[in-house]
Amino acid sequence: MVEIAVMGYGVVGSGVVEVLTNHTESIAKRAKEEIRIKYILDLKDFPGSPFADRFTKSFDTILQDPDVKIVVEVMGGLNPSFDYVKRCLESGKSVVTSNKELVAAKGAELLKIAQKNNLNFLFEASVGGGIPIIRPISQCLAANDVIEIAGILNGTTNFILTKMIRDKMDFADALALAQKLGYAERNPAADVEGYDACRKICILASLAYGRHVYPEQVHTEGITDITLADVEYASAWGGVVKLIGQVKMMESGRLQMVVCPMFLSRESQLATVDDVFNGIMVRGDSTGDVVFYGKGAGKLPTASAVVADVIDCVKHFKARKYLYWDDGAPDYVEDYRLDTMAMFVRAKAAQEEEGYKTARKIFGEITRLNRKNPEQGEFAFVTGSMKGQELEEKLARLEAEGVTIGNAIRIGDL
Amino acid sequence: MVEIAVMGYGVVGSGVVEVLTNHTESIAKRAKEEIRIKYILDLKDFPGSPFADRFTKSFDTILQDPDVKIVVEVMGGLNPSFDYVKRCLESGKSVVTSNKELVAAKGAELLKIAQKNNLNFLFEASVGGGIPIIRPISQCLAANDVIEIAGILNGTTNFILTKMIRDKMDFADALALAQKLGYAERNPAADVEGYDACRKICILASLAYGRHVYPEQVHTEGITDITLADVEYASAWGGVVKLIGQVKMMESGRLQMVVCPMFLSRESQLATVDDVFNGIMVRGDSTGDVVFYGKGAGKLPTASAVVADVIDCVKHFKARKYLYWDDGAPDYVEDYRLDTMAMFVRAKAAQEEEGYKTARKIFGEITRLNRKNPEQGEFAFVTGSMKGQELEEKLARLEAEGVTIGNAIRIGDL
Repeated sequence: MVEIAVMGYGVVGSGVVEVLTNHTESIAKRAKEEIRIKYILDLKDFPGSPFADRFTKSFDTILQDPDVKIVVEVMGGLNPSFDYVKRCLESGKSVVTSNKELVAAKGAELLKIAQKNNLNFLFEASVGGGIPIIRPISQCLAANDVIEIAGILNGTTNFILTKMIRDKMDFADALALAQKLGYAERNPAADVEGYDACRKICILASLAYGRHVYPEQVHTEGITDITLADVEYASAWGGVVKLIGQVKMMESGRLQMVVCPMFLSRESQLATVDDVFNGIMVRGDSTGDVVFYGKGAGKLPTASAVVADVIDCVKHFKARKYLYWDDGAPDYVEDYRLDTMAMFVRAKAAQEEEGYKTARKIFGEITRLNRKNPEQGEFAFVTGSMKGQELEEKLARLEAEGVTIGNAIRIGDL
Repeated sequence: MVEIAVMGYGVVGSGVVEVLTNHTESIAKRAKEEIRIKYILDLKDFPGSPFADRFTKSFDTILQDPDVKIVVEVMGGLNPSFDYVKRCLESGKSVVTSNKELVAAKGAELLKIAQKNNLNFLFEASVGGGIPIIRPISQCLAANDVIEIAGILNGTTNFILTKMIRDKMDFADALALAQKLGYAERNPAADVEGYDACRKICILASLAYGRHVYPEQVHTEGITDITLADVEYASAWGGVVKLIGQVKMMESGRLQMVVCPMFLSRESQLATVDDVFNGIMVRGDSTGDVVFYGKGAGKLPTASAVVADVIDCVKHFKARKYLYWDDGAPDYVEDYRLDTMAMFVRAKAAQEEEGYKTARKIFGEITRLNRKNPEQGEFAFVTGSMKGQELEEKLARLEAEGVTIGNAIRIGDL
């Protein structure tokens, strides 16, 4: 029998307890050992819970109990999670976490401690909820050079965009609905500003390329500026707007990384990933494109990924899983404006025809897009491919000629 | 250093050699050992090959060389593959294979020998080519009850159907094109009759439910009867025709399994899996639907899956991977006609209106479908949900009333 502790009894934590309880037998068969929850750490009281005898408010009780071999950290946030996880690893306990903030900020450091102590530090649930992605990248794709990873990594923003696309709800209404349904938090910044997607693409990039990428290194835009006009133009162009996290290995050995809304062609396998679902595309030199799709969040999907890691820990007490990356470096991620891209531009001028002419003068060949009932003076177009820097300069020139830029959104090549 | 042998230097075998050669360094880093190909077994000569010194025509050379720890079997077929693989496992060599025919027919037996000898028998490449699927099912979904697996498992038939849907090519032309492009063999039966898809769903079902399912136990239909008329009706209904392999665990503890064409709604995540791509949906009680998408065949995708297994073997010489299922049982798979389903029916009568009335009399509420330029007397409809047996009886009654059944295709609920 293996005894474990679960730190945090929120949505994911209670899900972990539920999955372990509902699948005791099949899990024991797969892990070849019975797994027993000895402690549940939470500052709140849960009177009447069938697990009442397991609750503790003292982290030290867990830390000092030599019978606890695996600790599940599902509290979220950096504080005190980082301190707790570090101390668990230092005292010989393997750790499984769903905490993307922790892994994105401190992954390299914690993996190093785990390696030094011949322990496992696993985090399948930190990206893609119940979708297996960490393991497939680290194992199955071991015989590939990963050329690119791109994905819809945040279910909340994908739900909001889906509502905007399908039901013509504007951003504010779609956000309010997401909050009402419990998909978005009262303070939705982590989702709608792209921070959550950024943490996840950082974890995937760190894993795929073996060196830590910190969220601060990645140019991150959210979806708060996306309007129904943009959604309509995307449709006229032949696609949809999605919030994409993307990483590409460049010939320089540095990464090109970005989190931002993109226009995706309807042909793209990611274009049909709707609602709260996530979709992650891994492009390998041998495999070609492989896409993983499923529920990226939610109590039971996330919990089942945590439990799968716990089972893997139990099976690998002696042979540590090879999951590791090195420390990051300040110049490891290129300026995102060095990448080549085409751009959708929605703009406004006193006279739309004059404005469009000016745009053509500045950008050269462009493709005009139309929508029903545009605003007075509104026009929209897609540029050719050029460096982000050049695009920025040309947009500035357009503004200098009296055109107001409403929005500029990348054309994704996914 | 670990020495291996590759048996078979066809498409996949030469791909394995290529992947191992092109990624020597990264593979050594991941496996923590250098992997060296000591022998390549093939009866043909390959003069001028850079690997000329490794070729052998003698299986015994490989078998009797104690330095060879891992044997890659990529010859295909049952004979002599089964005999060779069995003898390798019996003499202490782990085996990696891409041979779905072998795994579908002899998986339980070979896994038993591997277990007895504390060796690995791995076959990630046998299903889904470069798509990681065996490992995710056996590991990441360990904390789930798998409710259902359904997928587009054969790239050749999916290519043919895509050509029929997109380019209005008829079956014969699309097959000829597939043959010309090298996607289909001169004798295409294994693909177009559904046998290949059947082997793959058998492997997935055996793995997910822990007991061997033999291809002979599964009702299998191919796509040779699909006409452009069916494709048009599918479109009118709101979807596409796909060849689906499906397994569901029933309350009785027995499996409901089938390989057959199905109408899939355009909303289905599998409906957009086109061309030679595969898509596999795994429905877990905790994760919900997870879909894996990518190239299901081809030299390098398949080879990279084989090499990933070789790396896994090297990492797990001491701790055997838990991959196992028991022997099958004759009544383990239910009669497919016990399942409940709706059906698309294309039929012909002397007078289509009379025929349609007869159908309504027999089937009760049905949904009529129309297409442009139907044949004289042609009509089509979708039935309500009922047991397959009942559908069969009603179709027989329809024929008894002078109506000719052109085709009857399941409505998939995926």
